[in-house]
Amino acid sequence: TPATPVAIAASTAPAAAAASAPAVQPTATSLAAREPYTSPLAAPASPTSFFGYGEISYNRPFRNQSQTQIDVRRVVLGVSHQASERTRIVTELEFEHAVTSADDSGEAAIEQVYVEHRLNDNVGLKGGLFLIPLGFLNLKHEPLTYYGVERNFVETAIIPSTWREVGLSAFGVSDAGLRWDIGMTSGFDLNKWDRSSTEGQESPLASIHQEGQFARSNNLSAYAAVSWRGTPGLDVGAGIFSGKASHKLKDPSTANAGQYASGARITLWDAHARWTPGNWDLAALYARGTITDTNELNVQLAGGTLVPKTFFGWYTQAAYRIWEHGEYQLSPFARYEVFNTASGYAAPAWVGASPLQDEKVLTTGANLKVGENVVLKADIQRFQVDRSRDRLNLGIGYQF
Amino acid sequence: TPATPVAIAASTAPAAAAASAPAVQPTATSLAAREPYTSPLAAPASPTSFFGYGEISYNRPFRNQSQTQIDVRRVVLGVSHQASERTRIVTELEFEHAVTSADDSGEAAIEQVYVEHRLNDNVGLKGGLFLIPLGFLNLKHEPLTYYGVERNFVETAIIPSTWREVGLSAFGVSDAGLRWDIGMTSGFDLNKWDRSSTEGQESPLASIHQEGQFARSNNLSAYAAVSWRGTPGLDVGAGIFSGKASHKLKDPSTANAGQYASGARITLWDAHARWTPGNWDLAALYARGTITDTNELNVQLAGGTLVPKTFFGWYTQAAYRIWEHGEYQLSPFARYEVFNTASGYAAPAWVGASPLQDEKVLTTGANLKVGENVVLKADIQRFQVDRSRDRLNLGIGYQF
Amino acid sequence: TPATPVAIAASTAPAAAAASAPAVQPTATSLAAREPYTSPLAAPASPTSFFGYGEISYNRPFRNQSQTQIDVRRVVLGVSHQASERTRIVTELEFEHAVTSADDSGEAAIEQVYVEHRLNDNVGLKGGLFLIPLGFLNLKHEPLTYYGVERNFVETAIIPSTWREVGLSAFGVSDAGLRWDIGMTSGFDLNKWDRSSTEGQESPLASIHQEGQFARSNNLSAYAAVSWRGTPGLDVGAGIFSGKASHKLKDPSTANAGQYASGARITLWDAHARWTPGNWDLAALYARGTITDTNELNVQLAGGTLVPKTFFGWYTQAAYRIWEHGEYQLSPFARYEVFNTASGYAAPAWVGASPLQDEKVLTTGANLKVGENVVLKADIQRFQVDRSRDRLNLGIGYQF
Repeated sequence: TPATPVAIAASTAPAAAAASAPAVQPTATSLAAREPYTSPLAAPASPTSFFGYGEISYNRPFRNQSQTQIDVRRVVLGVSHQASERTRIVTELEFEHAVTSADDSGEAAIEQVYVEHRLNDNVGLKGGLFLIPLGFLNLKHEPLTYYGVERNFVETAIIPSTWREVGLSAFGVSDAGLRWDIGMTSGFDLNKWDRSSTEGQESPLASIHQEGQFARSNNLSAYAAVSWRGTPGLDVGAGIFSGKASHKLKDPSTANAGQYASGARITLWDAHARWTPGNWDLAALYARGTITDTNELNVQLAGGTLVPKTFFGWYTQAAYRIWEHGEYQLSPFARYEVFNTASGYAAPAWVGASPLQDEKVLTTGANLKVGENVVLKADIQRFQVDRSRDRLNLGIGYQF
Repeated sequence: TPATPVAIAASTAPAAAAASAPAVQPTATSLAAREPYTSPLAAPASPTSFFGYGEISYNRPFRNQSQTQIDVRRVVLGVSHQASERTRIVTELEFEHAVTSADDSGEAAIEQVYVEHRLNDNVGLKGGLFLIPLGFLNLKHEPLTYYGVERNFVETAIIPSTWREVGLSAFGVSDAGLRWDIGMTSGFDLNKWDRSSTEGQESPLASIHQEGQFARSNNLSAYAAVSWRGTPGLDVGAGIFSGKASHKLKDPSTANAGQYASGARITLWDAHARWTPGNWDLAALYARGTITDTNELNVQLAGGTLVPKTFFGWYTQAAYRIWEHGEYQLSPFARYEVFNTASGYAAPAWVGASPLQDEKVLTTGANLKVGENVVLKADIQRFQVDRSRDRLNLGIGYQF
Repeated sequence: TPATPVAIAASTAPAAAAASAPAVQPTATSLAAREPYTSPLAAPASPTSFFGYGEISYNRPFRNQSQTQIDVRRVVLGVSHQASERTRIVTELEFEHAVTSADDSGEAAIEQVYVEHRLNDNVGLKGGLFLIPLGFLNLKHEPLTYYGVERNFVETAIIPSTWREVGLSAFGVSDAGLRWDIGMTSGFDLNKWDRSSTEGQESPLASIHQEGQFARSNNLSAYAAVSWRGTPGLDVGAGIFSGKASHKLKDPSTANAGQYASGARITLWDAHARWTPGNWDLAALYARGTITDTNELNVQLAGGTLVPKTFFGWYTQAAYRIWEHGEYQLSPFARYEVFNTASGYAAPAWVGASPLQDEKVLTTGANLKVGENVVLKADIQRFQVDRSRDRLNLGIGYQF
């Protein structure tokens, strides 16, 4: 018999899964209850429930203090509606950078909107705009679930969190505790690549994601992810996403006139593990992306930001709950990351495409939890290549 | 004695009216309960209730597949607050195309915000930003209430759904089952007409609507609508909206220098009928709009998009609930539409204004309802004039 | 022993404080319950509660009626989550001018997001984006809490309502009924001053506020406010906010090359009193701001909008509840304001900086309350200097 609970959860959206809990026990929304795949099937008293999270950050660069910044990073409000015992509707509104208008820098977005339908206790389907299950952060980024004021670089620059696509998915959990999720979705649009912007070098995939906004979809993408939690405290997983990204017609004689990279395929995969023995919280993750058939495209981009052929990153992280008192929990942590958003290019020699150096970042700091809903964070980040980015970060976050 | 219930409903906003229902019977929010004018007067347990709906669509043109698109069309969250037994406050937030920012194509809008006050069981007043009661779709556009992935052309290109104005309204229902709604509101602004855009040809009124956003209102508009549902399954109605659209001063000697179309009046009317005997759902609608006094204005617009004098459209539609099993209901349908956004112009001959051809569209497909809250849709659309628009549409929608 | 309740409230956010009330007594959300500092400590039945308010206005200038406008000024939805008996999370979303997109004039903003933690019955802490406690309106601007369709000029042009900053605050109430609030927050950014816009002359501080959106914060600001309500019906208070606004490095030799106004400090203070004996509601307020070290900066701005050295305003207002019947309450009022957004400049003589004239505005009208949640407003405004602004205002507002 299985050693772990195998009833599948409502969704891979962790906060949503916990949304029903508060009604029953206001102050005891345990982190366990927020785990994907483990929330109870029973509908809450009211079919419509709410969840939310938010983060405010203070960043002070050591060498350029005049660039010190305070930002209301994000405020998220989610609505979950239990349409029937087996069907659930989840929507999530996100407001980034406080103010959105034609003259402001903020963004108001639908981060998720999907319908989920469980076939039985072990298998479910969903359709709509949902998060792609690669890595830890993309699925689970409420402030109390990760260490440090800022999300790690590997899961923002390489895995383009928060990364969502429109599509259909089947997911479930086996009796042996193996969770799985496969799907067919919209993908990236290489036509959005902007040679005059450095965005493509900061995060190649985030610069060409489509987010369900008039997403070009002549080509669809597919993904698969697995996660094994057969032993308490352990979570070992991996995922892969792949799809063509030019969205042009197949006939090259007419329809593709003026087109570049007609065969370009984007593939991203990751492997990750987390182990939480006693007061320890240990994690490691590796992610790698490739974009094929960019040789000709990079000729056209010559002199600007080129499209990389490969990009990758990994990190290892250790945290220890050193102090606990009433509502308070203090957990110092350290994270070491290596990442490169352009570790290789495909381009003729004359274009002069030279790979970037691997950036290496050490982040040390602490999370102070205040109950299950609030966290104060402080950390210092040291960069090995671009030292002008060394900085102090302070943050406050909440989730409910 | 009347054969039908005559107590007026909370509002012409159908989703809002149903918002209180889920608290009592989560999975049984019948479509009947969403009908305008028929929701119960009793306040829900909590005075603040929520409702919502959303749509995601996939459009694949047959002749230009590289333009295939996936879009999170809209996600709507509504809040209804029962201030007292007789007074209710309704707000509705709409997020279109997933992402709104200075660099994105989405839109975050207040679709409705009004206060409703019932004088007695048969008459109510409301004030604020509300939907104009012309046609079927403008009042009732939750995905489960109409057939096809896309809203029909007549009720988007001719009646500019979702069309709302700021104003005051009186509405009610007679003992004989005649529902009525009259009001005075803000109107269109012909100064917004853009000769360099084709938007005015896609939907003349949608290109100059004001949506309660700094709406020019030197002239106000008025409307009246009636709907008769004296026989179960039948809904026969008509409506008219009319108002001046230049918003200039009356004295032509000074204030109107440089003004065009000072006397322009916009009038739109429709007549519609729906009959639902047994498993059938039959509907037909005709709508016609006119803009007067545009002769001089079109001289100034010569060479660009002109303002039409007349525009119209009609459709007829039949659907049949062919299969039902548990939560599932399958309803194939066909709809034939004829519409013309510029069937006539007022302009001197040298301007060369020639009316457009009537476009004729046949839409055939099916809606698959999953419970009362979720629908999957598929259809094919064939255009008689512009065949490059022929396409396959797939969609998923929800409402609660 | 104190004559007034001294238990501190959840927050200086009045609407939020009342959010839990409706669940218990839908139609009896008294204004008293919305008072800052006096809401009960007890958690509501559900930890997540909602509040909201909104305003729609009609403005008709007497001399330029073609500029008549209707606008959905704002629709606000707030969410309050009681994380524990002592900890509360408050977020407030605001939608201004109905429609927000890259092509529209609206704005979707996070007006507040903060976490509040009470140390004991008399002292609390909060952190996040919150309202600065100067004047009456900045903290309390729900439509039923003030007279007239439009907010007064002193508390929009001088005190830049709605004014929020990111920071930390301590607040409380003494046994003698003295409420206090001190904090350290982000501040203004003088680098945002736009010489080519008149915005700086309409409201100097509103034109350079940062609203928690990538707020430059090399310099922080501080504030302190007190309010005494020891006698029923009386509220006497004052507040001051001050901080540097250039955010540059201290070393003038290198880092400040090209910088102006490196030492500029912005200070704003106010004193206010309100007395509500019987049916009367009497109020007065004075506010004054200064910006130092602008001499050199104004040389660079010469020919455009200059930065003022001083700006100020005051008003006195009287309202009387003349009629009451069932849900209805009618209160005529008059308000006389004097304000000047640029009463003095610091600039060399050749720049030709001449102070503006004091503008004097008389507003007379009435508020008609319909229950505790809805208000209809009408008033006329007469301007002494710029008579072209004389106008009729009509409005409808709600709060819950």
